[in-house]
Amino acid sequence: MAEAPLRRRGRTGGGAARRAERTTFKIETAKHIERNIPNYEVLDDAALEVIETNAETILAEIGVNFVDNPAALRRWREAGAEVEGERVRLPRGLARKLISTAPSQFTQHARNPEKSVVIGGKNLVCAPVYGPPFVRDTEGGRRYATMADFEKFVKLSYMSKWLHHSGGTVCEPTDVPVNKRHLDMLLAHMTLSDKPFMGSVTDPSRAQDSVEMCEILFGKEFVAKNTVMTSLININSPLTFDDVMMGALEVYASNNQACIISPFIVGGAMAPVSVAGTLTQVLAEVMAGIAYSQLIRPGAPVIFGAFVSSIDMHSGAPTFGTPEASLVTYGAGQLARRLGLPFRSSGSFCGSKLPDAQAAYETANSLNMGLLSGVNFMLHSCGWLEGGLVASFEKFVMDADQLGVLHGLAKGVPISTDDQAMDAIQEVGPGGHYLGCAHTQANYKTAFWQSDLFDYKPFETWEVEGARDTMAIASDKVDYLLANYIRPNLDPKIKAALEAYVDAKKDSMVDAFM
Amino acid sequence: MAEAPLRRRGRTGGGAARRAERTTFKIETAKHIERNIPNYEVLDDAALEVIETNAETILAEIGVNFVDNPAALRRWREAGAEVEGERVRLPRGLARKLISTAPSQFTQHARNPEKSVVIGGKNLVCAPVYGPPFVRDTEGGRRYATMADFEKFVKLSYMSKWLHHSGGTVCEPTDVPVNKRHLDMLLAHMTLSDKPFMGSVTDPSRAQDSVEMCEILFGKEFVAKNTVMTSLININSPLTFDDVMMGALEVYASNNQACIISPFIVGGAMAPVSVAGTLTQVLAEVMAGIAYSQLIRPGAPVIFGAFVSSIDMHSGAPTFGTPEASLVTYGAGQLARRLGLPFRSSGSFCGSKLPDAQAAYETANSLNMGLLSGVNFMLHSCGWLEGGLVASFEKFVMDADQLGVLHGLAKGVPISTDDQAMDAIQEVGPGGHYLGCAHTQANYKTAFWQSDLFDYKPFETWEVEGARDTMAIASDKVDYLLANYIRPNLDPKIKAALEAYVDAKKDSMVDAFM
Repeated sequence: MAEAPLRRRGRTGGGAARRAERTTFKIETAKHIERNIPNYEVLDDAALEVIETNAETILAEIGVNFVDNPAALRRWREAGAEVEGERVRLPRGLARKLISTAPSQFTQHARNPEKSVVIGGKNLVCAPVYGPPFVRDTEGGRRYATMADFEKFVKLSYMSKWLHHSGGTVCEPTDVPVNKRHLDMLLAHMTLSDKPFMGSVTDPSRAQDSVEMCEILFGKEFVAKNTVMTSLININSPLTFDDVMMGALEVYASNNQACIISPFIVGGAMAPVSVAGTLTQVLAEVMAGIAYSQLIRPGAPVIFGAFVSSIDMHSGAPTFGTPEASLVTYGAGQLARRLGLPFRSSGSFCGSKLPDAQAAYETANSLNMGLLSGVNFMLHSCGWLEGGLVASFEKFVMDADQLGVLHGLAKGVPISTDDQAMDAIQEVGPGGHYLGCAHTQANYKTAFWQSDLFDYKPFETWEVEGARDTMAIASDKVDYLLANYIRPNLDPKIKAALEAYVDAKKDSMVDAFM
Repeated sequence: MAEAPLRRRGRTGGGAARRAERTTFKIETAKHIERNIPNYEVLDDAALEVIETNAETILAEIGVNFVDNPAALRRWREAGAEVEGERVRLPRGLARKLISTAPSQFTQHARNPEKSVVIGGKNLVCAPVYGPPFVRDTEGGRRYATMADFEKFVKLSYMSKWLHHSGGTVCEPTDVPVNKRHLDMLLAHMTLSDKPFMGSVTDPSRAQDSVEMCEILFGKEFVAKNTVMTSLININSPLTFDDVMMGALEVYASNNQACIISPFIVGGAMAPVSVAGTLTQVLAEVMAGIAYSQLIRPGAPVIFGAFVSSIDMHSGAPTFGTPEASLVTYGAGQLARRLGLPFRSSGSFCGSKLPDAQAAYETANSLNMGLLSGVNFMLHSCGWLEGGLVASFEKFVMDADQLGVLHGLAKGVPISTDDQAMDAIQEVGPGGHYLGCAHTQANYKTAFWQSDLFDYKPFETWEVEGARDTMAIASDKVDYLLANYIRPNLDPKIKAALEAYVDAKKDSMVDAFM
């Protein structure tokens, strides 16, 4: 420790800065996960059939509301639903019949073709946190998010090996007017990263802007023929579809762009307190929403979404990493597969205020359940803190690192002759050790997943280096990554055209913060 | 916040002390987990058969060493094995035939009959960390463990709702001579708790002392007819059975007391770097060990153990919460069930030096995998830190709280008419909320698992209360529990007899620290 650290901040040493000098960071992106392991199924066929029958009963007898959307009511009436005011009742079998035109998997193209992802089947695509109005880091604490924060998260996503997707509203850039935010956010995803991304859903006109910016980025013809965005359409549970979200869905579906159609449920508030009851409502809601997407354009790519948390009945706060949320997710995965639809759920969910042990237990519970439940698109797979109110820089890199565990698990257990390792067992024999044997020498580099973040050093070394906790180590890693960021190539003409589009759109509107 | 806190320490407030004034702690113990969910199986039948065939090949062709144990070699020879020096080769089928007398489940009795546990089948019994020479807490940092620390951990186990078992060497009381430690440890388990516990294995004579102390506690006749201890017999992987461990096994098996027969494997060092190779060696080792237990006494209760970590190939440090360790555990569970044996694996494993986010991610990965892999006896289910070198007080209560998640998940998804909640969905309808509906009112108290530790408060409240992280909250909880500990009733005559036994044994030996 003779050399002076370049900087010293709190408990953190200058390790990251020193490493930055020694090594050149290599930006890698893993292919989306292809599961070579089975899905975990908690419901038997009889239970699944009860839930499916009940969901049809909800649709037929209780119905769903399509609010402030006369065109939707007209479409439903023409499709054979009973419409009474804004209430839409779907005869048994209608939703299922409409859903049958939705694809079971689809490709979302990235501007870098190597980073295009296949959503559905045995695949799992990981995207970062979506929607927090606040950010937190070790230095600045908790504060309203800005566009500068947004750009940092896009850069971190771009540099995170296990993230396949750049996401959407990685945080709310509250320093940009609400009616112009989507333009800056999309420009950041399009220019600072080459991974696939999400479109705006906060107004149908903003969805349309998203499509038009994609036409500049990918070419108009390419967008007409291919899916280049996956966007998040929330259902207002229970059983309500509002005009803003449905308006955005209409834009995307008619352009053959993908939507996640997703109830947002805090159990006990927006759905019954029981797992079976929640699953029933989720299924009814998703079936109605996806059926509606297919009324807009048969074959439009969609994802069966389920955002489910439990609730602290004392405070009303949503709680995460709980067994009930896991059971709902496992069950929802089964229901999605029986409908032949890609499935979105899970994420780096936690209620903790800090990226501490609570955050990590809750998150790891959710991530493990996400992999095993057969999730195909995992929004919020890193960076989520405090019930989604906060995007945490440190937690972002912690979670992004943990996604590597899911990649490793998904490989399953290969059983080739080399994997069986009988030669090694013979070579080493009773009482020996395997560190130097031929099989180990040939395989050790890829045998074990290793964290790129966690501390594996001996206690004494760790103590001499400052006895840092994971938060401090992650803080240095954030700085290191951002210091080593290099923008991916983009045709300067396309970049200029995107910037001109954004400028023109901004000039056409007065600022609005609602 | 008008009242003055009773104490203030670092970032922690006086919350625990205030709560202690308000509430009287109620000591509860959950029944051991009975899984109403399926096991997760990563290997198909073909892969399982390859591994089983290869394990038989290892036993028949490579063999295992029984070291410094002529009686064992004689027993093996009489049973039909080929013995060459200390090498024992088991003809194909011999181990499996011997294993067939081992019970698929057994009851371990506690002195409080309500706390007896059934080990095997669909059950999961949770026991605390075993073996660390160091302890750590927020106030005292990392230091050698003492008998006072040991007693604190026994008290915490006794007061932890989700812990079913008091464990064994919850930490090494390094202030007591090695040859007398087991006496103090057993006395603590027997008098400070009424949960089931483990016996000593560090010398056959200490195993015998453990049996004799149980005869005092339970009565000689009861011990002759019932299993009252489950003890940990490690195999020296690869393929070696030493005389100390086998000597302890011989004492326990001949007294019909249970043993976990468990390889201790750091992958790449004590077993091949591949998952399939590790599983093969684990199976061969456990088969040889359990077959030997049945040579001692057919029908003696045993558990198929597997302690597996991966390795950091840079530092040689064991790594935890990794995908490879999970895959081995899932596979080992399948192999154990095919042998019809109870299965021990998993735990609150982590490599972190602090009970921070790294510790929690790694631990949660391990605990989730433990539940889903069908573990029946989970040693180390709370308190493990720094690769098992440290027993952490704060992590103990964090992990013990998280075991509640496993209890909740194991319930599965009940599907009664009330669980289906169709009345509630009808009552609330589109756009309503469930907080006040009849179904919620009837069920909310038991609907969702809630942490007894984590912070679920609004951000502002949390900040005013000191912005504590999980470690600080857990530190207060440890103090709170220990301040509220009340010793369970024990017949004073039995207590006096146990103390007299310990005193007499101690007086009979000079102190030894080896």
